[in-house]
Amino acid sequence: MTLLSALAGDPELEALFTDAADLAAMLRFESALAEAQAAAGLIPAEAAAGIADVCAGFTPDWAALRAGLARDGVVVPELVRQLRATSNAIYAKYIHVAATSQDVIDTGLALRLAPALDVLDLRLDALDAALAALSARDGAAPLMAQTRMQRALPFTAADKVDTWRGPLPRHRARLAELRPRLIRLQLGGPVGTRAELGPQAGAVAERMAGRLGLADAPAWHSQRDGVVEFGGWLALVCGSLGKMGQDVALMVQNEVGAAKLAGGGTSSAMAHKSNPVPAELLVALARYAAGLSGTLTGAMVHENERSGAAWTLEWLVLPGLVVAAGAALATALSLIENLSFPSRPA
Amino acid sequence: MTLLSALAGDPELEALFTDAADLAAMLRFESALAEAQAAAGLIPAEAAAGIADVCAGFTPDWAALRAGLARDGVVVPELVRQLRATSNAIYAKYIHVAATSQDVIDTGLALRLAPALDVLDLRLDALDAALAALSARDGAAPLMAQTRMQRALPFTAADKVDTWRGPLPRHRARLAELRPRLIRLQLGGPVGTRAELGPQAGAVAERMAGRLGLADAPAWHSQRDGVVEFGGWLALVCGSLGKMGQDVALMVQNEVGAAKLAGGGTSSAMAHKSNPVPAELLVALARYAAGLSGTLTGAMVHENERSGAAWTLEWLVLPGLVVAAGAALATALSLIENLSFPSRPA
Amino acid sequence: MTLLSALAGDPELEALFTDAADLAAMLRFESALAEAQAAAGLIPAEAAAGIADVCAGFTPDWAALRAGLARDGVVVPELVRQLRATSNAIYAKYIHVAATSQDVIDTGLALRLAPALDVLDLRLDALDAALAALSARDGAAPLMAQTRMQRALPFTAADKVDTWRGPLPRHRARLAELRPRLIRLQLGGPVGTRAELGPQAGAVAERMAGRLGLADAPAWHSQRDGVVEFGGWLALVCGSLGKMGQDVALMVQNEVGAAKLAGGGTSSAMAHKSNPVPAELLVALARYAAGLSGTLTGAMVHENERSGAAWTLEWLVLPGLVVAAGAALATALSLIENLSFPSRPA
Amino acid sequence: MTLLSALAGDPELEALFTDAADLAAMLRFESALAEAQAAAGLIPAEAAAGIADVCAGFTPDWAALRAGLARDGVVVPELVRQLRATSNAIYAKYIHVAATSQDVIDTGLALRLAPALDVLDLRLDALDAALAALSARDGAAPLMAQTRMQRALPFTAADKVDTWRGPLPRHRARLAELRPRLIRLQLGGPVGTRAELGPQAGAVAERMAGRLGLADAPAWHSQRDGVVEFGGWLALVCGSLGKMGQDVALMVQNEVGAAKLAGGGTSSAMAHKSNPVPAELLVALARYAAGLSGTLTGAMVHENERSGAAWTLEWLVLPGLVVAAGAALATALSLIENLSFPSRPA
Repeated sequence: MTLLSALAGDPELEALFTDAADLAAMLRFESALAEAQAAAGLIPAEAAAGIADVCAGFTPDWAALRAGLARDGVVVPELVRQLRATSNAIYAKYIHVAATSQDVIDTGLALRLAPALDVLDLRLDALDAALAALSARDGAAPLMAQTRMQRALPFTAADKVDTWRGPLPRHRARLAELRPRLIRLQLGGPVGTRAELGPQAGAVAERMAGRLGLADAPAWHSQRDGVVEFGGWLALVCGSLGKMGQDVALMVQNEVGAAKLAGGGTSSAMAHKSNPVPAELLVALARYAAGLSGTLTGAMVHENERSGAAWTLEWLVLPGLVVAAGAALATALSLIENLSFPSRPA
Repeated sequence: MTLLSALAGDPELEALFTDAADLAAMLRFESALAEAQAAAGLIPAEAAAGIADVCAGFTPDWAALRAGLARDGVVVPELVRQLRATSNAIYAKYIHVAATSQDVIDTGLALRLAPALDVLDLRLDALDAALAALSARDGAAPLMAQTRMQRALPFTAADKVDTWRGPLPRHRARLAELRPRLIRLQLGGPVGTRAELGPQAGAVAERMAGRLGLADAPAWHSQRDGVVEFGGWLALVCGSLGKMGQDVALMVQNEVGAAKLAGGGTSSAMAHKSNPVPAELLVALARYAAGLSGTLTGAMVHENERSGAAWTLEWLVLPGLVVAAGAALATALSLIENLSFPSRPA
Repeated sequence: MTLLSALAGDPELEALFTDAADLAAMLRFESALAEAQAAAGLIPAEAAAGIADVCAGFTPDWAALRAGLARDGVVVPELVRQLRATSNAIYAKYIHVAATSQDVIDTGLALRLAPALDVLDLRLDALDAALAALSARDGAAPLMAQTRMQRALPFTAADKVDTWRGPLPRHRARLAELRPRLIRLQLGGPVGTRAELGPQAGAVAERMAGRLGLADAPAWHSQRDGVVEFGGWLALVCGSLGKMGQDVALMVQNEVGAAKLAGGGTSSAMAHKSNPVPAELLVALARYAAGLSGTLTGAMVHENERSGAAWTLEWLVLPGLVVAAGAALATALSLIENLSFPSRPA
Repeated sequence: MTLLSALAGDPELEALFTDAADLAAMLRFESALAEAQAAAGLIPAEAAAGIADVCAGFTPDWAALRAGLARDGVVVPELVRQLRATSNAIYAKYIHVAATSQDVIDTGLALRLAPALDVLDLRLDALDAALAALSARDGAAPLMAQTRMQRALPFTAADKVDTWRGPLPRHRARLAELRPRLIRLQLGGPVGTRAELGPQAGAVAERMAGRLGLADAPAWHSQRDGVVEFGGWLALVCGSLGKMGQDVALMVQNEVGAAKLAGGGTSSAMAHKSNPVPAELLVALARYAAGLSGTLTGAMVHENERSGAAWTLEWLVLPGLVVAAGAALATALSLIENLSFPSRPA
């Protein structure tokens, strides 16, 4: 799958879904939990400091983590065991107090998605700017509008580019709206009530959220609407870009020649070919993301306080969906940079 | 399919997707278009009045509309032909001026979805109230929290109900956010530029939007993000309700007895059965809506200025999705009314 | 939805999914059950004859059936109640003996799908013949092969038609293979063991299957692979036809002119348009069916001996999928009849 | 994603989708092509021998392959360039003659799927045997059948196991049926006609197919029914196993205790938990595979002779689907080995 990632991958976003990034985010949770519990007087301040040190210097036994995940369905029990074994015995018992696996993993996800949202938003902005530049340069070029794949009436390249730009500010607005529903602290304890934290629960959560740069919120263990909404948004973005790719693939058909795409793909059999690879890729990613988004939506049906089945389904689907959207945006950007509208159509 | 609609249908929302409702909304478009064009001085005021009369009194030739739709892929060409044939010859030529089929149909959809959004929002509110009442009545009942389908720790019925209520205000917030992106005028003319309306295009659109109670917006013929976002929202709502249904089905298992559901379904073979039919239905609708939402997302990939393929796909999917969400909310309401938590679990 | 059925419906197959057809098939089950039980000496022969008469002359109380379905999640308990109430009291107790709702409904489905399979197979055969005729008439026409939406190398219309015909015999072979896994008797009794039929269970099932023209098989209440396999086949057929539609839509682009499609759709705004409506419809149906098939596959996860949730999901999805495939085949047939390849491409 | 593969991966099948396996299969194609062309007298015998040597000793420039894939949308143009650059100049021109990228990649896929089918079939057989053994050991245990998640009537563990075994021979029969439609040579040349091979085309294909252990068939570049049928089969298998997993998760609920699952997952927060991780995983994989299968089905809509979009979509989806089915079978096998039915239910 490495090779395919050269086409459809996104190194910047893939980096958020590596084991190392996963571990780092989980360790941030454990540190922040201890720190907040110390601030609330629930554990000794030295314990929190010691736990922070342990987390900062931690080198996991990956093989044991893998075995733990295979056995437990989540990596956290084994991770906590390793952290405790690594720690000074005095601090060990203060690690992961009153938390549950899902707190660690979901908070870790939020921590890793936060920069993903920034990246995606920046790329949307950059794409909008690239489209504006394309329109400024080539917008006056005459173009034949096409409805139902038949010639309709003439308009201009600027009109066409407007239809591509239209959704982009809406996508950015949606992202701003959903962000506080997604980039949230998860802290509920075993069954989501924070009962184990006692009267200080709210204070601990607030402090953790602040320290981690997350929205504070009641536990959302079995309320996956934030994650699924985000999956839908990713697919929506991919859909808008797939539409742009479809248009380009149609316009650069040899018989149509309504636009030109520089740097086309070569063929192993036909030297004359110049294939609109990025345009096609956008279509593929749109359809892929649409499917994954539908599948992810099915993961809302949790059984009671935590569904191993539905939650695992999220893990199987979400990273690929994020990467697809990232790859689609990067591909769209390079597509637009290589696209031009001839001032006189063929 | 009539029979099944007794279980999984929603008469109130289905009424918005009948041929009659479709026609009425399209006629509202044609009336409002003429009125706004008259106000802008583009057509005679008497023509607008005459067209309003024609639309108000119009009885279609349904068979011809069907044949027209089968031939043209859209019903509008034949509808406009019938309207013109019905009209005073003097007004006939002023019908549907500068508009295209998609303007009529998409605006008609927005007109029909507007009350659907109201219905759905009201039901979300009612469900939240019903859950609050359930919690007020039975919330102190002890309950065993379950994670990964195993006993976790005790909490209360109120804790459980909180997890069901949690997403509801978020769904309502999302609905308020997406409404102006969905309940919009569609007016673009043949290729989406409004060029046929000339310098008065903006004024015509603004007036039409105001008259029809829709947001004004540039044409969105090939920008389907508003529709698909709404489909995702519908599936999100169904997902939250499906989760509630799944919980109830698990809690009312005979061996668990953590909750009681009155009015259970009977069996043709086993007189002792009391089946949690509405709970199961919620799960079915959640999975159905998740799938439809993913399919709908694929309909974003329009070819150029209008895709007959992608647009038809929307028509095939969206009504069922709206009805599923409506049915899920109605089912959830009746489920909660029949649900109780025994003060002492079995 | 009536109007849309003019475009995307299939009257012949829709007729198999009406309430009347549903009822008729369920009555055939009850008659055949009684007859086979009488033949096995389990109930009096006169009872079987009387039940056959009741079923033959039965007029249901539809409103009560609807109410029953809404309450019980299946229509059978109320149907059996009505049948018994209609019957001579002597026979009433022999109705539906040892059977369960799912036996009635699944067998009824198999009875209705049997003619659907015949229709679909005949249409596949007719389409293959139409394509052969097209190739015989226009096959020598030169055509430019297109890869990745770019001109590749010249070939002929016959080469193109060959790629459309290729999958058709495979689809027919698949249908023949899956038929005995789908067109099966369902007879299991309350929990699928046929225990209530005693030692005569096998004989009763064999006789019923023979009388109803179905394959005999152990109960498959919670084994939905036959139904889901069929859904996959329907989507596979739609996919092959969608590919054909996509090709036609591309070839009849004004700028390409590689093929001609007679009887194109008209536009409400542009008199010169001739839209490839059936070609686009095939693409829409392919994507619709693909989505429904994925959703249907999720319905395999039954809980224990019968899942109300998963089974209801089947009901929501399967009829639309069958009709989509039927409509796609009918559309493809008419498309091919209207398609021609000019002997000299534009 | 490495960590997650410890839970949901399948090392044996993942090995078929590595870059190394991909390359090895593509090299087998190029060798076999040259050998068959030499046997048909189309290229010198020494060239074929030389090409075989080059392929056998080839070490690619992976970075250049990645760059080539990113540019061309397929890896083959760059691979062929590297092969030619590595070869004796005399042989270089005989490499990849009359073939196209899709021939190499699709044949390579068939070569890698062939052992996957064997693995999957063996595991189906092993699972059937494990279930038979379970039934032999515990089959007499009394069990309460459950319909619609409510107690129905007593039956036995053997009855339950029978419902899990039922689909397995059908899945194996389906696999045998589809194998010749999937494990096929792809050889069509640039536009699928084999025209570049001249009158010897059939002989070359037959010899290649024989040498590679593949079925011979006309080119199927744009006819993806074999691949999509296989995807449906994979999801069907996952569905049957997901149903088994769902049953186990329900039966091992603490309150039900109808079965026991040894080796349960531990919790980071609750020492008393023993989570049915493999059972939940089967449900997750079933839903994941169902979604991927629906998405894959959408990849049937190729544009003309080759769709970069649809084909890329296949690449994004199929490997994960194969691995999901493999993981599900391996998980099911270990689940059954750890499952027991108490002779006296709780």
